[in-house]
Amino acid sequence: MRLHVVNPNASAAMTEGIASAARDATPAGASVTVTGAAGGPLSIEGPVDGAMAVPWMLQRIEEAERAGTDGHVIACFDDTGLDAARCLARAPVVGIGEAAYHCASLLADRFAVVTSVPEALPVLRGNLIRYGLAARCAGLRAAGVPVLEIDAGTPEALAAIRREVHAGLEQDGADAIVLGCAGMAALAADLSEDFDCPVIEGIAAGLALAAALAGAGLRTSKRGGYAAPRQKAPR
Amino acid sequence: MRLHVVNPNASAAMTEGIASAARDATPAGASVTVTGAAGGPLSIEGPVDGAMAVPWMLQRIEEAERAGTDGHVIACFDDTGLDAARCLARAPVVGIGEAAYHCASLLADRFAVVTSVPEALPVLRGNLIRYGLAARCAGLRAAGVPVLEIDAGTPEALAAIRREVHAGLEQDGADAIVLGCAGMAALAADLSEDFDCPVIEGIAAGLALAAALAGAGLRTSKRGGYAAPRQKAPR
Amino acid sequence: MRLHVVNPNASAAMTEGIASAARDATPAGASVTVTGAAGGPLSIEGPVDGAMAVPWMLQRIEEAERAGTDGHVIACFDDTGLDAARCLARAPVVGIGEAAYHCASLLADRFAVVTSVPEALPVLRGNLIRYGLAARCAGLRAAGVPVLEIDAGTPEALAAIRREVHAGLEQDGADAIVLGCAGMAALAADLSEDFDCPVIEGIAAGLALAAALAGAGLRTSKRGGYAAPRQKAPR
Amino acid sequence: MRLHVVNPNASAAMTEGIASAARDATPAGASVTVTGAAGGPLSIEGPVDGAMAVPWMLQRIEEAERAGTDGHVIACFDDTGLDAARCLARAPVVGIGEAAYHCASLLADRFAVVTSVPEALPVLRGNLIRYGLAARCAGLRAAGVPVLEIDAGTPEALAAIRREVHAGLEQDGADAIVLGCAGMAALAADLSEDFDCPVIEGIAAGLALAAALAGAGLRTSKRGGYAAPRQKAPR
Amino acid sequence: MRLHVVNPNASAAMTEGIASAARDATPAGASVTVTGAAGGPLSIEGPVDGAMAVPWMLQRIEEAERAGTDGHVIACFDDTGLDAARCLARAPVVGIGEAAYHCASLLADRFAVVTSVPEALPVLRGNLIRYGLAARCAGLRAAGVPVLEIDAGTPEALAAIRREVHAGLEQDGADAIVLGCAGMAALAADLSEDFDCPVIEGIAAGLALAAALAGAGLRTSKRGGYAAPRQKAPR
Amino acid sequence: MRLHVVNPNASAAMTEGIASAARDATPAGASVTVTGAAGGPLSIEGPVDGAMAVPWMLQRIEEAERAGTDGHVIACFDDTGLDAARCLARAPVVGIGEAAYHCASLLADRFAVVTSVPEALPVLRGNLIRYGLAARCAGLRAAGVPVLEIDAGTPEALAAIRREVHAGLEQDGADAIVLGCAGMAALAADLSEDFDCPVIEGIAAGLALAAALAGAGLRTSKRGGYAAPRQKAPR
Repeated sequence: MRLHVVNPNASAAMTEGIASAARDATPAGASVTVTGAAGGPLSIEGPVDGAMAVPWMLQRIEEAERAGTDGHVIACFDDTGLDAARCLARAPVVGIGEAAYHCASLLADRFAVVTSVPEALPVLRGNLIRYGLAARCAGLRAAGVPVLEIDAGTPEALAAIRREVHAGLEQDGADAIVLGCAGMAALAADLSEDFDCPVIEGIAAGLALAAALAGAGLRTSKRGGYAAPRQKAPR
Repeated sequence: MRLHVVNPNASAAMTEGIASAARDATPAGASVTVTGAAGGPLSIEGPVDGAMAVPWMLQRIEEAERAGTDGHVIACFDDTGLDAARCLARAPVVGIGEAAYHCASLLADRFAVVTSVPEALPVLRGNLIRYGLAARCAGLRAAGVPVLEIDAGTPEALAAIRREVHAGLEQDGADAIVLGCAGMAALAADLSEDFDCPVIEGIAAGLALAAALAGAGLRTSKRGGYAAPRQKAPR
Repeated sequence: MRLHVVNPNASAAMTEGIASAARDATPAGASVTVTGAAGGPLSIEGPVDGAMAVPWMLQRIEEAERAGTDGHVIACFDDTGLDAARCLARAPVVGIGEAAYHCASLLADRFAVVTSVPEALPVLRGNLIRYGLAARCAGLRAAGVPVLEIDAGTPEALAAIRREVHAGLEQDGADAIVLGCAGMAALAADLSEDFDCPVIEGIAAGLALAAALAGAGLRTSKRGGYAAPRQKAPR
Repeated sequence: MRLHVVNPNASAAMTEGIASAARDATPAGASVTVTGAAGGPLSIEGPVDGAMAVPWMLQRIEEAERAGTDGHVIACFDDTGLDAARCLARAPVVGIGEAAYHCASLLADRFAVVTSVPEALPVLRGNLIRYGLAARCAGLRAAGVPVLEIDAGTPEALAAIRREVHAGLEQDGADAIVLGCAGMAALAADLSEDFDCPVIEGIAAGLALAAALAGAGLRTSKRGGYAAPRQKAPR
Repeated sequence: MRLHVVNPNASAAMTEGIASAARDATPAGASVTVTGAAGGPLSIEGPVDGAMAVPWMLQRIEEAERAGTDGHVIACFDDTGLDAARCLARAPVVGIGEAAYHCASLLADRFAVVTSVPEALPVLRGNLIRYGLAARCAGLRAAGVPVLEIDAGTPEALAAIRREVHAGLEQDGADAIVLGCAGMAALAADLSEDFDCPVIEGIAAGLALAAALAGAGLRTSKRGGYAAPRQKAPR
Repeated sequence: MRLHVVNPNASAAMTEGIASAARDATPAGASVTVTGAAGGPLSIEGPVDGAMAVPWMLQRIEEAERAGTDGHVIACFDDTGLDAARCLARAPVVGIGEAAYHCASLLADRFAVVTSVPEALPVLRGNLIRYGLAARCAGLRAAGVPVLEIDAGTPEALAAIRREVHAGLEQDGADAIVLGCAGMAALAADLSEDFDCPVIEGIAAGLALAAALAGAGLRTSKRGGYAAPRQKAPR
């Protein structure tokens, strides 16, 4: 089984980090290819970056689809361009935010999300409402740490993230934690052990669900909302 | 007061039609400029077209914002790129779908939406859920008529639209109708008279609400979800 | 365009204050008449006052309707008697609470409401649920200041209001503020500047939306819930 | 235990019919007094009638409260003036619509409501949403029969009601029926037997719940939304 | 009228306590029989205990049903096995959690629940969502006191419960309190007086509602979800 | 990886059918053990059967847990005893109903469920509400065919199922189908091809998701709702 992870951010360093996380989380019997957007914003921080990144990301989805990929993972916690990607694919397409919420819903009554910066919260809130899983989310929390500092792994960044994980469990009453930022993937195992509860990061969750769907022979619906786009007459 | 209507579809004919509808619906004391996307898909029919159109549309939003516009209207019933446009604007930004739903909510207990083709329904449903107005919508209906035939105004197209308006009122129990396609703007007045109920089309609703917000001195929030995008380091 | 603002409170001083706020917020091309209830409670503080005020208010709606008004605004943040008023009017009718929520929803992802006293909160919560906009409301807050002290503009009252505005933005995570009391209208501009976000008061919002609907040629639905009342046989 | 049923409709004939239904449904150990509004509309058909009736009904609530009633029932399926009545009472106050929905929720997974005329539906829908029980309602149906014809018990009226009861069970998938009109009280027993399912009418349900609350020593909360109205300074 | 209270917990001491509370709360004209499960877990603390207790409890429901009981009350705040019990009964069946939520909804705009230990919260939350009353619940709070200490009535236990009642009213903004544990029944009257608001415990509420339904001649629906179980072929 | 499928129905024939479906759907790198309840009802048709089956099923969960299973699947579309099973397991536990809904949500905007008999619908509806995915479900449909006839594969049974699949797509507007009965597993592939859309059956979905969670190193939360049951003192 061949899985494709696309990083909608144009940063090559970020793509490398995602590739490293994907190597650690490759499902049994699968091989994973990681691609990055050839253009668009270096990092996606809000709706404008997201909008500018999607056309470049869709290119990668189409290329991988033509190459015969069995499943796609969109490696941005905003699930940027997810609906459009599904229109271009027969293989299943999973966003890492969506994947993490669904996995958390199968392991715990309610989960809290800990993400990087407060600006990210409205997009995540909107996604949870549309997916139908908002009632399963006990709290949406921002650690107040920009993505680059998270990548750098400074002690201050780690302390801020741990503080919010603790608050999500104790104040919000969550039973599991979703890490709302691709850059936090490496922290999941330690946090899970320290707080003795599921701590879910999206790249592993996304690869696992894409492999599950593909392995079960399931494909994206081409009826209704995810129908292939109509051909246009030339201008 | 200067208002800006942007057509995210690249079709010049469609932009002309929108300009004509906008002339008929210019609010008192306002002047309206209509622009069209300089590139992207000729018509927006689904999420991929929407995604490819947004970068071109955002260009127009930025230009109009720099030129000192007092309010923006996005003339696509999908409200394509609405969040991203708000991030780039200090002036209010209103989508024609959103505008029509809000107006209908002020005139009737529940409204039905009549749009062109069934593929359009999932995007509209998702928007209604996110805006919070899904419970006010008694029914989402597609006339099964492509946009171009609506523009051509064939008797068959008109008959199909009237049939769904009737069903929305009688079967769904709606008290008002929202026309879910920019190309239906010219039909609103006649339908309203024939069915003796509010029939709301988005261009008039969008211009009216943008003028209302701008006239009241209100501007798009720059906190949280609609903050201006961060500057990126050059690649 | 002729707009009618009715103050359901019988206090003449309050009617004057509303008239002053309405003068500052008259939409372009409109003239505004402000009327006050000829009887009923001096001030509306809870459901009993509201119930006793509505018959008097409906009298004003009927008079203005007969006089040919193009739109009505109910100047009580509880939106007292809104459904009944719509049954009596062909022109659009907008409550100032409802108007403020709709405007806030077009400018921000989520808003917080700051009102006078805690007793007011259940009515506002019920309205938000019925309008469908409860999910857009990040927090409902009472400053703990009675309406008369707000009108008097004491430093303590202002400090209490500012404290709740701050809490709505920082603790509730709102991106905009709705001032939930007609007496706070004069504070909106300063608060908006100081907190650098939209601060919406209902009289301006109500006039703007009533003018928008009327200007777009839209009228209250006479189907379903807002049908004119049936004539009764004499007793 | 002394229970008070108030008919907010001014029709003496209707008050007599309600008194007859109340006699048949008096709970064990209770005595029931039925009063009618001394003024206001003869019958409540929509929000304007409701608004004009409430002040007269509140008078009856206050009189009964002063006389030492242990519980009140508002005998209009719209639950007209329910919040205001609770503000004036220490004893429990139950609306017959609300009572029927709560009883149905304890006997069946989902219920359908069969009422008189379609104009009644929006008020009932709004109430169900506010009470929180909308998801328990499988369908809201109008028999298309005015209240007076229901009272007259014509074969056509009965046939229309039976048709909608059948549709509520078979088409909507309800497991129980709520009769949404005080005039249908006498039909409940026969319909229940014929359709072999609970058929709930509001007067019996309202008396039963008012007696249940009073018998358990429970009283209306005077905190928050149902606090007694504040005294006003004289004008 | 004969009512049956079943304690799904196998603890005889608990059954005695419930019998004592039931004696204090017997509705007018009713006699109450209290039974305890003949096997299963001594106390129900979570879903496994609940699952193991239900078969024993259903036995008691069947016995009482055969003996001609007019109504059943399940005396566990989790409403353990409620759906299954309804399938076996023609008489009404009420859970004490469900009963308390419905009574609170008739006396106050919003209620807070104070229960024993945090592990109990997810079951209660799930029930509130299914019943449809989650929006009426302002807060779910655990006093952090195990059931046995509540029964023992230690000063620490009482202080912890009072602290959460206070927080439910002041922080959550509730207007009434639901005591979420059968062992708290004896505290309701004092708490109600001290905090001057309705404080509802489930045994009284359950008996009152079961008597109300039975007294009104209402019975559990045998359509749909509560149909009697089908006979199986012998294995 | 070792996966455990438990059939809560006591029918050995049904267990064999499930084992056969599980063999066809074993995820890469996994081995599957199928167990059946040693007692309890032969088939689960409603809440009483479910309640009587759970203690026997939990025994199998505990045995498999002790034997070192990496993931459990509960092979009843009602997801009988799911919460209790999670309390007893550290490995992930997935119900086949829940699994099918989550997979469908990743492949389509909205899905319809086609199950065997109408009595099954209320349990499924309640589950969808609790999981949060009710808004993703366009329709719940019963083919009116008992489980044994489905197993027998009569032409009438197949025709009835196809009719409801068609109605779910065309009338409800679903984009994918969930087969709501373990006995329909063998039909999924053909129906998917004939209707050209995803048709999801729960055994494959459940095995895929259990393998996905286990493969990603995720385990059931032991905080909050799924904590291990407390030890009881001996009676």
